[in-house]
Amino acid sequence: MKIAAIGDTFSHTFKFTQEQVNVFAQISGDTNPIHLDAEYAAQTQFKKPIIHGIFSASIFSKYFGTVWPGEGAIYLGQTIQFLRPMYVETEYEMLAEIKEIESARNKAVIACKIVDKTTGKTTMTGEATMMHKEKIK
Amino acid sequence: MKIAAIGDTFSHTFKFTQEQVNVFAQISGDTNPIHLDAEYAAQTQFKKPIIHGIFSASIFSKYFGTVWPGEGAIYLGQTIQFLRPMYVETEYEMLAEIKEIESARNKAVIACKIVDKTTGKTTMTGEATMMHKEKIK
Repeated sequence: MKIAAIGDTFSHTFKFTQEQVNVFAQISGDTNPIHLDAEYAAQTQFKKPIIHGIFSASIFSKYFGTVWPGEGAIYLGQTIQFLRPMYVETEYEMLAEIKEIESARNKAVIACKIVDKTTGKTTMTGEATMMHKEKIK
Repeated sequence: MKIAAIGDTFSHTFKFTQEQVNVFAQISGDTNPIHLDAEYAAQTQFKKPIIHGIFSASIFSKYFGTVWPGEGAIYLGQTIQFLRPMYVETEYEMLAEIKEIESARNKAVIACKIVDKTTGKTTMTGEATMMHKEKIK
């Protein structure tokens, strides 16, 4: 069991498909055509359909919910800056680093970002606040 | 076409189902049992499965992506504080209010919250930053 220390880093490579984006549009109700319609997107500054920002940010939820700290984690907050559009079938890397630990409350602040693995450009930054009784203390 | 003014408010009532949460777990990969397994959840402080926080926050993406400002909106950022667990088959209201407008950049900062319609308790607060060439100026 890995107990949090300031400076710990995590990384996770991922990719989304258009099918995942289509399903997200259905279940969230965010059916804005910029996410779904290639012809529409071609007329915009983005050129191609972009992944919903909040769905891209779900990679943080996946990582903290299933890898570390995983079961028992309580998600207290997330900030997100959407810096660049993110596209399907593109390899991205989530990078995270523990910045602060508040032992008395089993709480950690974790800097998060997403980088395009091909261009090296950062597409998203933010900060997660997580609580976990055994792994953050 | 509604052009943004400071103090404008928006509201939207919604409800999620366990089926939507199950599908979100599949497409995001966040399969933490607190969202999916009633027996597991019964042993925790939450008593029942809770909706993924980031999925609940997708109501902001839905509203800003499809209602106002809708098509042409560019989502620049979102902060979220997860204050209380949110449950399926429960009626919630999203409330939003325009707090700042930066005309030169067609940008608005919008205070967001989610309230449980039965208890009146706030389950989530945050701030969205949106850009729209025609509707924010």
